[in-house]
Amino acid sequence: MSEDGHDLAREATALDGADALAPLRAAFVLGDDTVYLDGNSLGALPRTVAARLAGVVEQEWGRLGIRSWTESGWWTAPERVGDRIGHLVGAAPGQVVAGDSTSVNVFKAVVAAVRLAGPGRDEILVDAQTFPTDGYIAASAARLTGCRIRAVAAGEVPRAAGERTAVALVNHVDYRTGRLHDLPGITAAVHAAGARVVWDLCHSAGALPVELDADGVDFAVGCTYKYLNGGPGSPAYLYVRRELQPRFDSPLPGWNSHADPFAMSPDYTPAQGSARGRVGTPAILSLLALEAALEVWDGVHLAAVRAKSLALTDFFLRCVEAYVPQGAVESVTPAVHGERGSQVSLRCPSGAGAVMEELVRRGVVGDFRQPDVLRFGFAPLYTRFADAESAARVLAEAVAP
Amino acid sequence: MSEDGHDLAREATALDGADALAPLRAAFVLGDDTVYLDGNSLGALPRTVAARLAGVVEQEWGRLGIRSWTESGWWTAPERVGDRIGHLVGAAPGQVVAGDSTSVNVFKAVVAAVRLAGPGRDEILVDAQTFPTDGYIAASAARLTGCRIRAVAAGEVPRAAGERTAVALVNHVDYRTGRLHDLPGITAAVHAAGARVVWDLCHSAGALPVELDADGVDFAVGCTYKYLNGGPGSPAYLYVRRELQPRFDSPLPGWNSHADPFAMSPDYTPAQGSARGRVGTPAILSLLALEAALEVWDGVHLAAVRAKSLALTDFFLRCVEAYVPQGAVESVTPAVHGERGSQVSLRCPSGAGAVMEELVRRGVVGDFRQPDVLRFGFAPLYTRFADAESAARVLAEAVAP
Repeated sequence: MSEDGHDLAREATALDGADALAPLRAAFVLGDDTVYLDGNSLGALPRTVAARLAGVVEQEWGRLGIRSWTESGWWTAPERVGDRIGHLVGAAPGQVVAGDSTSVNVFKAVVAAVRLAGPGRDEILVDAQTFPTDGYIAASAARLTGCRIRAVAAGEVPRAAGERTAVALVNHVDYRTGRLHDLPGITAAVHAAGARVVWDLCHSAGALPVELDADGVDFAVGCTYKYLNGGPGSPAYLYVRRELQPRFDSPLPGWNSHADPFAMSPDYTPAQGSARGRVGTPAILSLLALEAALEVWDGVHLAAVRAKSLALTDFFLRCVEAYVPQGAVESVTPAVHGERGSQVSLRCPSGAGAVMEELVRRGVVGDFRQPDVLRFGFAPLYTRFADAESAARVLAEAVAP
Repeated sequence: MSEDGHDLAREATALDGADALAPLRAAFVLGDDTVYLDGNSLGALPRTVAARLAGVVEQEWGRLGIRSWTESGWWTAPERVGDRIGHLVGAAPGQVVAGDSTSVNVFKAVVAAVRLAGPGRDEILVDAQTFPTDGYIAASAARLTGCRIRAVAAGEVPRAAGERTAVALVNHVDYRTGRLHDLPGITAAVHAAGARVVWDLCHSAGALPVELDADGVDFAVGCTYKYLNGGPGSPAYLYVRRELQPRFDSPLPGWNSHADPFAMSPDYTPAQGSARGRVGTPAILSLLALEAALEVWDGVHLAAVRAKSLALTDFFLRCVEAYVPQGAVESVTPAVHGERGSQVSLRCPSGAGAVMEELVRRGVVGDFRQPDVLRFGFAPLYTRFADAESAARVLAEAVAP
């Protein structure tokens, strides 16, 4: 134990006192005793949501009924919410649309990217450590478009991309280790090889700055129920770079993506802009809950979020080192800031599943990923330095023989 | 004018008084003055929804957080809600799964059906009058699987199905005319030709008995926001006949359809049963609102719903004939009961759009479909005979020169 527990607890109090983002915690429904370190799986409930959802149900659906598609702005919600998300991932308005699940959006993006590829390009590169659904969906896209899949480590994508590559599908932050991949560098390398890139932002959006426009990304997808706090299974999103939109050829051309959906034409003419990424009727209750949840970001700067995220994970790693017996856990999250997302993953060789159950029982909510990883997510909008210190302390007790 | 207005108004009162389903109206948020005839587009709000949704947000998300995936039954909601829907469309448990949009489910079903087809079968038959999205998605499925599309009238499907046919995609009730197609007959004819059939139940489920199991249907899809009252854009559903499930080969094999999703395996092994039709994380708020909405069906018999539906549409047609000047409108909905769904569509050659706007202004909510159709939906759980009489009376005033 390299540092004293009292010192670390005092330091946590001081850090929380000096944290400019600390007041944002009050925008969430979180008890004082809750050590919620699972915002990388399901974000906490923003206080804006319940009242907004009640209004949508009782006023917009209950009283206005069908008229709400126009009068309450339901019809344009996917683009409107998409723009709000775009603001958080460095996308100018008109390029992000909200709807469907991440998996469905991966399918749209990968198939559309293959369709943009030049002749002879029949290879889809996927991040070998990817969150599984991306790999499964990419394999389906490959099968339907006559491509083959090649799985390589994300860091190897620049070297692997070549003249056969149509598209690379890469995770910005690895869900298991919390490793942050080099989005600008990989994007540039894939482009240099003449291919397109699809980024999965599930574990980065809302936790650190993402610059889709500035970094020249072609397509991106992500969920909104982690650091964006949209609620369980809230709609995902799709970014299609503006200059690619006129050639974006969706494999799911549902009527919501039609240029004139209410003409009910038997012929398909795609809409311009981000609406081309829509499919069917959006799940309005989930979508408007997400819209309300996104209000919490008004005036928040991602640079400040990132600074706090790194300070939190640094501090947690120090507390773990100080409290947890040597050898009981080992961090698999990179120590280098430039390679770290907003979570800390600890390999726990002995009974990781049971250790996490014990943590949850004691009010420290993280999660467990097979075979032996304890994940602790640090959502900078509401996580306190005191939470980091408590979690490490309880972890030390839980792993004690 | 063949009948007297006072007589019809009195008859409406008598019919409502004798209606065994009349008490169900109280289960919905509908003002006494509301003549809501748009339940074929957006069903009315069931009273169960608001409280349930508030509980999901505040208790399940806000207090239990991530634990609700298991402790509140979120993870299994798609199958649980699917079984409730299955009960209403003649499907034994384990064959219906809720989630995604109708368009996405059409894609799954059509591609899966093509993959089941024998050699040499490369034709997808689609209902030429289909709701547009089905046609657009079928065309995409054809393009990705190397098939061709052939559009024929639904009634011609039995004659058109042949040795090249892989699958026929047919609407049970035509969205524009309200025509009910012969599900058992068309299914049998398509099967006799050695092909599969996908039924779109959007405009029939909840309005009349559907017998998917008994009629040997292969696949079916539908939305839940019309006669099932699930709310705007509530999740759609997919039926895969039990004996086809082991060979159901989804083009959208997201991680939720994996046999062991939390193993996070890089290899895809599909789940058994209806879960194989899942894709990504379900939109829980919309899905559980739907679940609450479906409670209103407990103890309701579809035969009684159908009897009231036909009585309502018969009565509305009589009122229109009695009140509306000859030639101002013409019904395009079949007069024969066996060919009628639960809506009446009136062609209104002169200014149909403006006529519907005037109706809505006067509190009679139907809708308008290009180029000249006024649609009036009769949702038997909450529509009154008095509504039918009022709507016809107001329509007569609105079309008066």
